[in-house]
Amino acid sequence: MSKPTPISGFPEWLPPQRMIEQYVIDRLRRTFELYGFAPLETRAVEPLDQLLRKGETSKEVYLLRRLQADPDAAASAGDDALGLHFDLTVPFARYVLENAGKLQFPFRRYQIQKVWRGERPQEGRYREFLQADIDIVDRDELAPHHEAELPLVIGDALASLPIPPVRIQVNNRKVCEGFYRGIGLTDPDAALRAIDKLDKIGPQRVAELLMSTAGAGESQAKACLSLAEISAPDASVADAVRGLGVEHPLLDEGLAELVVVLETAAAHAPGLCVADLRIARGLDYYTGTVYETQLRGYERFGSICSGGRYDDLASAGADRFPGVGISIGVSRLLGLLFGADALSISRPVPTCVLVALPAESDRPAGNQVADALRRRGIAVEVSPSAAKFGKQIRYAARRGIPYVWFPGVDGEPDSVKDIRSGAQQPAERSTWSPPASELTPTVSGGSAAAAD
Amino acid sequence: MSKPTPISGFPEWLPPQRMIEQYVIDRLRRTFELYGFAPLETRAVEPLDQLLRKGETSKEVYLLRRLQADPDAAASAGDDALGLHFDLTVPFARYVLENAGKLQFPFRRYQIQKVWRGERPQEGRYREFLQADIDIVDRDELAPHHEAELPLVIGDALASLPIPPVRIQVNNRKVCEGFYRGIGLTDPDAALRAIDKLDKIGPQRVAELLMSTAGAGESQAKACLSLAEISAPDASVADAVRGLGVEHPLLDEGLAELVVVLETAAAHAPGLCVADLRIARGLDYYTGTVYETQLRGYERFGSICSGGRYDDLASAGADRFPGVGISIGVSRLLGLLFGADALSISRPVPTCVLVALPAESDRPAGNQVADALRRRGIAVEVSPSAAKFGKQIRYAARRGIPYVWFPGVDGEPDSVKDIRSGAQQPAERSTWSPPASELTPTVSGGSAAAAD
Repeated sequence: MSKPTPISGFPEWLPPQRMIEQYVIDRLRRTFELYGFAPLETRAVEPLDQLLRKGETSKEVYLLRRLQADPDAAASAGDDALGLHFDLTVPFARYVLENAGKLQFPFRRYQIQKVWRGERPQEGRYREFLQADIDIVDRDELAPHHEAELPLVIGDALASLPIPPVRIQVNNRKVCEGFYRGIGLTDPDAALRAIDKLDKIGPQRVAELLMSTAGAGESQAKACLSLAEISAPDASVADAVRGLGVEHPLLDEGLAELVVVLETAAAHAPGLCVADLRIARGLDYYTGTVYETQLRGYERFGSICSGGRYDDLASAGADRFPGVGISIGVSRLLGLLFGADALSISRPVPTCVLVALPAESDRPAGNQVADALRRRGIAVEVSPSAAKFGKQIRYAARRGIPYVWFPGVDGEPDSVKDIRSGAQQPAERSTWSPPASELTPTVSGGSAAAAD
Repeated sequence: MSKPTPISGFPEWLPPQRMIEQYVIDRLRRTFELYGFAPLETRAVEPLDQLLRKGETSKEVYLLRRLQADPDAAASAGDDALGLHFDLTVPFARYVLENAGKLQFPFRRYQIQKVWRGERPQEGRYREFLQADIDIVDRDELAPHHEAELPLVIGDALASLPIPPVRIQVNNRKVCEGFYRGIGLTDPDAALRAIDKLDKIGPQRVAELLMSTAGAGESQAKACLSLAEISAPDASVADAVRGLGVEHPLLDEGLAELVVVLETAAAHAPGLCVADLRIARGLDYYTGTVYETQLRGYERFGSICSGGRYDDLASAGADRFPGVGISIGVSRLLGLLFGADALSISRPVPTCVLVALPAESDRPAGNQVADALRRRGIAVEVSPSAAKFGKQIRYAARRGIPYVWFPGVDGEPDSVKDIRSGAQQPAERSTWSPPASELTPTVSGGSAAAAD
């Protein structure tokens, strides 16, 4: 077999990077659970018709086919109609519909899983990547205060990581739609899709799009752009919108909801949220608050965490489950931060102590030392060989293991050496502990973190 | 959209089951890390030629195809030569070869991931399932003491779960091969494949297979069956084998290794390991110790954790990385225990406290109570509605939340109610804590656990 090579778009971390990723996942979980979100996983596959409900993303789907499938049998078994999920929202909506009778509503869940998209890979865009989602769904009606709660969860979750502070940009689809209707546009979705392109193509070309695709006249296009320019950290956003002189009941409703989101966030963490009325989110299913998230100092990365309220994603017949959700792009965030050398870990192994062996025949005694330390929560390896002590110490150093334990011989006490300082002292296997800060590896922001 | 239905072979847990699974994963991780295994994940896909290296399993592979793939472009990009991995050993061996220059050897990693097999689903057999693997690989040579270490890790890991005790059955390929060669058989692999069928087809038909496929005469077949009947918890296994009167250097080497495995395990946890010389493991790549694991009282489940030593799985040109690994079938284990009603969780949500709201206008104050409790590690939800308190308490009861917090009104102190006992008492949000046993949900063996 020849030496294998990476597959473009399918990233794999080295062990220290994977340890950082695991640490990040654990911290996110911790916050999600503090807010009462239960863990959930869905299968990796969905029937193709489920995956294509949103239409737009059909080109990204990976279909499955059994290598030895009999073409006729496969078709009848439905095997060739399964594809890998490309996000966690569509599978979650399907799961809620399928299990509604067994769930308590409002239902709060978090879901941290890989997703797959057959897109052309580029920097920070993968074909296989990890997402961390939270959603709240209710039956029939979802109270809007849930839209104000999610930024608190995300704010706490991301603040628990050694990454720069974030700013969550919020908007409300009702503000946009109400405004567009208030100025007489009849296809607000088309207008929203045009505004969504503002960052990419600029105001001049968005104005042209509004006129060519959304039926806007020149002054209507200008009004849409004026709305999109509004940004404010507090209730003044409503005054700024009203200053444009447009009226519509949906606009009023959206502004009231938007202000609650901003005020709830400000009471929790000042500066966390800002209303940014250019935030549109391209996909069609959002119906209320929408979110994007920037890492301060890394705005060039784009949004690392996005979502919104959806009213019609999980519906079957008379059953309707409106929801609100937000998704952290974990692989994307880590890939970009690894690339910027902005995350590091204190050691690349869990191991805190290496038990040295005077001779291979001492391995059973070494195992006993290791057992005694492990029972008290200290991660230990027994030396892989009874080489000269200098070589065993170099092995620990190469692995990044901070302490080497020397079992006492001829009735002498055991001793432990901090191989960084060289300090060695007698130690009791039933009582010795490393400093708490060294018990497990610690993750920190790298020195190369961008200035805020 | 019509109500979706499950897909056979792709199990999905309900929230309390997923919480149990998450708990199990966390406990396994904890033990793996105490032994110095670092976490690792590999991508879900491998090139088809990697997946087919073992030959036997080719029928099980799911291939990927992009829905909108241009047939010509896809072929040139190699897209249609990717399949989902069907275990974690083959991807790990590939990862080691690919990244050998960046790893420290012996390299110890654990890997807990989904795998996929396009097999016909049946009880306890899935098309998508979770495995938890540990492996140790070294460069060029792997010391046999690593084969004795893995049962200690697995023993501790499984003992940390609320499941019945386990018994790890071990054998050594060198014992079998040395014995078969010692009695004059020239195709030991064929003999091993016949012995591997002992549980399924019984000794009579295995004897026939040994004669028809492994070139055995009647007395040789009988000798093979005599070897397979040997089972012992200690070094007496070597005497029993030697009692059969067969000699071969490889047999001696295998017996010596087998005795070290048994004695190391006995020193760590008496009764954990037993030599069972019928354990063969069907796949061809094992070259030393092999393991299977039975849950006592649930022997009918078959092996829940299997593996062995492999010398030639990760090799490229002159680079050779012998290893030893063992894999816990997490989905399989949980699916069987869920089916036997043998695992339960104290509540189906992480939430410990529900903050009740006298009125919707009290939500900001309720959020402040929640923040204060969460900062001290208590999982809290704020009531989804300011309904009558009786209704809010019933919501908590339905969710399984044990405590309801009532913010004080008009200068009165806050109070907290244990909704199971009905006891309510004044409480300070900056100091109150639930009993430690109720801070997070606890998992326990169900009442229906089989007698040992």
